[in-house]
Amino acid sequence: MKEFENTFQNSVKTHIFLLDKIMNYIVKRKGKQVRPMFVFLCAKLCGEINPSTYRGAALVELLHTATLVHDDVVDDANFRRGFFSINALWKNKISVLVGDYLLSRGLLLSLDNNDFQMLKIVSQAVKSMSEGEILQMEKARNLDITENVYFEIIKGKTASLIASCCGVGASSADANEETMKKIMAFGENIGIAFQIKDDLFDYGDQEIGKPLGIDIKEKKMTLPLIYALNMSESSLKRKIINIVRNENENPKKVNEVINFVKEKGGLKYAELAMIKHKNAAFEILSTFPENATKKALETLVSFVIDRKK
Amino acid sequence: MKEFENTFQNSVKTHIFLLDKIMNYIVKRKGKQVRPMFVFLCAKLCGEINPSTYRGAALVELLHTATLVHDDVVDDANFRRGFFSINALWKNKISVLVGDYLLSRGLLLSLDNNDFQMLKIVSQAVKSMSEGEILQMEKARNLDITENVYFEIIKGKTASLIASCCGVGASSADANEETMKKIMAFGENIGIAFQIKDDLFDYGDQEIGKPLGIDIKEKKMTLPLIYALNMSESSLKRKIINIVRNENENPKKVNEVINFVKEKGGLKYAELAMIKHKNAAFEILSTFPENATKKALETLVSFVIDRKK
Repeated sequence: MKEFENTFQNSVKTHIFLLDKIMNYIVKRKGKQVRPMFVFLCAKLCGEINPSTYRGAALVELLHTATLVHDDVVDDANFRRGFFSINALWKNKISVLVGDYLLSRGLLLSLDNNDFQMLKIVSQAVKSMSEGEILQMEKARNLDITENVYFEIIKGKTASLIASCCGVGASSADANEETMKKIMAFGENIGIAFQIKDDLFDYGDQEIGKPLGIDIKEKKMTLPLIYALNMSESSLKRKIINIVRNENENPKKVNEVINFVKEKGGLKYAELAMIKHKNAAFEILSTFPENATKKALETLVSFVIDRKK
Repeated sequence: MKEFENTFQNSVKTHIFLLDKIMNYIVKRKGKQVRPMFVFLCAKLCGEINPSTYRGAALVELLHTATLVHDDVVDDANFRRGFFSINALWKNKISVLVGDYLLSRGLLLSLDNNDFQMLKIVSQAVKSMSEGEILQMEKARNLDITENVYFEIIKGKTASLIASCCGVGASSADANEETMKKIMAFGENIGIAFQIKDDLFDYGDQEIGKPLGIDIKEKKMTLPLIYALNMSESSLKRKIINIVRNENENPKKVNEVINFVKEKGGLKYAELAMIKHKNAAFEILSTFPENATKKALETLVSFVIDRKK
């Protein structure tokens, strides 16, 4: 990870004072670095870690950071990872520009080293992520979301990036096409399970007190609610959808939705779906030979999915 | 241009309803398409127009559209009003995501066809554009801008894209390294002249009544003002800078700055700088053999730089 951090820091260096200040700030507030770890472990699972693996990890981290910075604009979030967001400090325009800058640095890092396959994998993820987010916004306006659409959204906005991390790692180790497919399906399943877990937190399935019902306030209909609605007769359905549409600022009403979801078994159902995808990921992993890397990947998956916050 | 438009339209097709609606809107409101024309004419100047030229033109147009869309993100002025309406937030969110989506489509179009050199040229432009814009914002805070920094800013934010259009065209026609350098220097000079022209408009050098002094209001110090300040003794300099810093919302005071710039010969000076760069572009062009393509390029350059609005 030390060597990776050097690659990453070098890849964002610039002679522009303000930009350099922002980059230093970004490098400092780095998170748990789960994504680079998926890159390294999947590379090791398929072959040997080599210089292109470091570049691949830097590429996904640059992309991920770019989307976080752009996300700060999108959600107008004031806090991220306990620091003030770039957005709050330097405003929206800078956030967009810094995001674009990070994307371009990732692009050039790959192009300068002829890492074309990796770049393709990551570009596909950028496309899927924006498509997923926009589909989610479309559905937040109409509230006509089905289970299939829910999975399309989370595959795009969340799972595509984790799948691309795994794919980039495998690609850096020259994995063949069949292995590439397996490893990306592995990543996609983890991403789906991860997002369902995240959506469950909104209904209180967590240890410490994050406020509940944020998704409902933002008219994001997630799996627990979709299932609960499918289990209801049409008058109750209309009533709940009406709350999401028109009374989503009223905490009492939001609580009514949360209780409705619990009573209809929405949490139980979503949890089973999560476990299904987690198991699918482990099943794919089981086709690889037993060794320390595989063990480490299993630990990483559990860390990501079984987290309590 | 017809064939190009097909390539472009195909490159943004999507099955997501809301996104498709936005894409149709973007395709419809397309501008004068100056950038694709630079691609085609530079390709023809260096060899033959071929399928990769169409993809290259679509790539720069996707990139240009992405930056326009990102530009739509609310600026400081909207911030100062205190809080955002849902609609303003919605607009922000969509702008960023649609911009990212367009970038990813451009990337994939190039990667899927192994247009690596083109992609490198365009990625370099994305980097330069965000660096240029951020440098401009940094200088808008400090107001300590020199002529050199001004040129660094406009090379980044404006000239790099036109240079990349020319480079992409030449690259698609398999130009050699020396020709590539010449053609990109040609584009850079056009871009610089174009931006100086644009900056001159802010001081009234135009036919129809766009409001003046917008740059001053936004604390953007451009060549006419920089020159005028350099020609002034320090007390007058301080006075003018103080207006830009603290009284830039007062139309009377902004007018005072405009008149100051005119009296000090700032407009004349900037115009000469513009002509110098236009001539440099024509000089590079003169090293190419005489033919219809060259004539067309000369016409395009005049159209872009000698425009009255």
